[in-house]
Amino acid sequence: MDTTKKTIILFSGEFDKVMAALIIGNGAAAMGDEVTIFCTFWGLNILRKTEKVETKDKKTTLKSMFGRKMPKGTKKLGLSKMNFAGAGSPMMRRATKDAGGMSLEELFDSAREQGVKFVACTLSMDILGFTKEELIDDVEFEGVAAYLGHADEANVNLFI
Amino acid sequence: MDTTKKTIILFSGEFDKVMAALIIGNGAAAMGDEVTIFCTFWGLNILRKTEKVETKDKKTTLKSMFGRKMPKGTKKLGLSKMNFAGAGSPMMRRATKDAGGMSLEELFDSAREQGVKFVACTLSMDILGFTKEELIDDVEFEGVAAYLGHADEANVNLFI
Amino acid sequence: MDTTKKTIILFSGEFDKVMAALIIGNGAAAMGDEVTIFCTFWGLNILRKTEKVETKDKKTTLKSMFGRKMPKGTKKLGLSKMNFAGAGSPMMRRATKDAGGMSLEELFDSAREQGVKFVACTLSMDILGFTKEELIDDVEFEGVAAYLGHADEANVNLFI
Repeated sequence: MDTTKKTIILFSGEFDKVMAALIIGNGAAAMGDEVTIFCTFWGLNILRKTEKVETKDKKTTLKSMFGRKMPKGTKKLGLSKMNFAGAGSPMMRRATKDAGGMSLEELFDSAREQGVKFVACTLSMDILGFTKEELIDDVEFEGVAAYLGHADEANVNLFI
Repeated sequence: MDTTKKTIILFSGEFDKVMAALIIGNGAAAMGDEVTIFCTFWGLNILRKTEKVETKDKKTTLKSMFGRKMPKGTKKLGLSKMNFAGAGSPMMRRATKDAGGMSLEELFDSAREQGVKFVACTLSMDILGFTKEELIDDVEFEGVAAYLGHADEANVNLFI
Repeated sequence: MDTTKKTIILFSGEFDKVMAALIIGNGAAAMGDEVTIFCTFWGLNILRKTEKVETKDKKTTLKSMFGRKMPKGTKKLGLSKMNFAGAGSPMMRRATKDAGGMSLEELFDSAREQGVKFVACTLSMDILGFTKEELIDDVEFEGVAAYLGHADEANVNLFI
């Protein structure tokens, strides 16, 4: 089994797009590939701890606003389509379970267990006001130059 | 003319994004490339037969719900932007015709005639409750491992 | 420093997606790569001159309608998420400035100064009714075949 590299920029934070990214990431890891999922903008939300984290420095109103308005972790994500005012996402969870598929949380855990590397985009963190302690463990912190370094070594690079 | 491979994951089901995917697919096929368009989530809608299909097994309410709420085939797709409550899509159809461009249906037919391979993602089918008989003919049924196999052989891989 | 090629199809016209495309484009150009950003559909808006341009031929109502309803240049773009009826985009501009990041206009100028090639998709121009004189200078005009030519020579190809 050849090991090749894959990168995914996870820009989107919707349930269905995160699910697509994690299915591809898990599939590639299962085939022995090195996978990097570079979480930027709304994709950063999946890396947020669900509990409240006290940060050392007081955040500006603007920074705390983005943080308050956006979901923490994978559990509260809405669908990009057919969201039905929030009902679409539980419906898709139920349909996935009925189909014998893995839940979003299982996909995320599985990806991490299989060694998929989750990276938090540091520029997006600065803009949205997320600190390192607000994100889950085992996340790496990189900028666009590091992403491009991974992408140059990979044979499949997706933007989701 | 070198033959190379291209893959497109068609995740989105909006008129304009489907159009972009089909224009790229047709263009690459015209240049002699092998093109695979892997339809997943909302992209599956373009592969649905427009007529009602009786399925052997009764569907759960949940599964029939996704099917009832979503468009069948390419004719009823809305725009991702400037949709104007459904008016945007006919406007773009008209503007495309005025510009001498191919209609979405012509692009789809042309892609199939040129040998672009349309694949239905089997996991998405299971989740959204679509059976093989509800999809048009000449569609292949594959999962993420098969997609990755195509992508590994391709030099351009897009997620739309 | 090896020079390799990168292509980005900029299909989307939202502030955050344009920003992502320009950050990647600038980053790659800074590493010595040849970058082509192929602007199509809503992505064309960033190439529009902000001032009113008299066109030789009178436009049909349909063509002038798309033009009137869509933003010209980078200054009026909304966010794809958290738009808050238009307030999201100024908030993100402010947050980016507070984080010491470049503004969207600075990113655009920097990309052009670094030699990132901006291409206007001619088919999209015809559909949306944009003429060459309505777009900014130093833009190239190409179709899907030319895009595929660039992509075939590139090692990273993204669709945003």
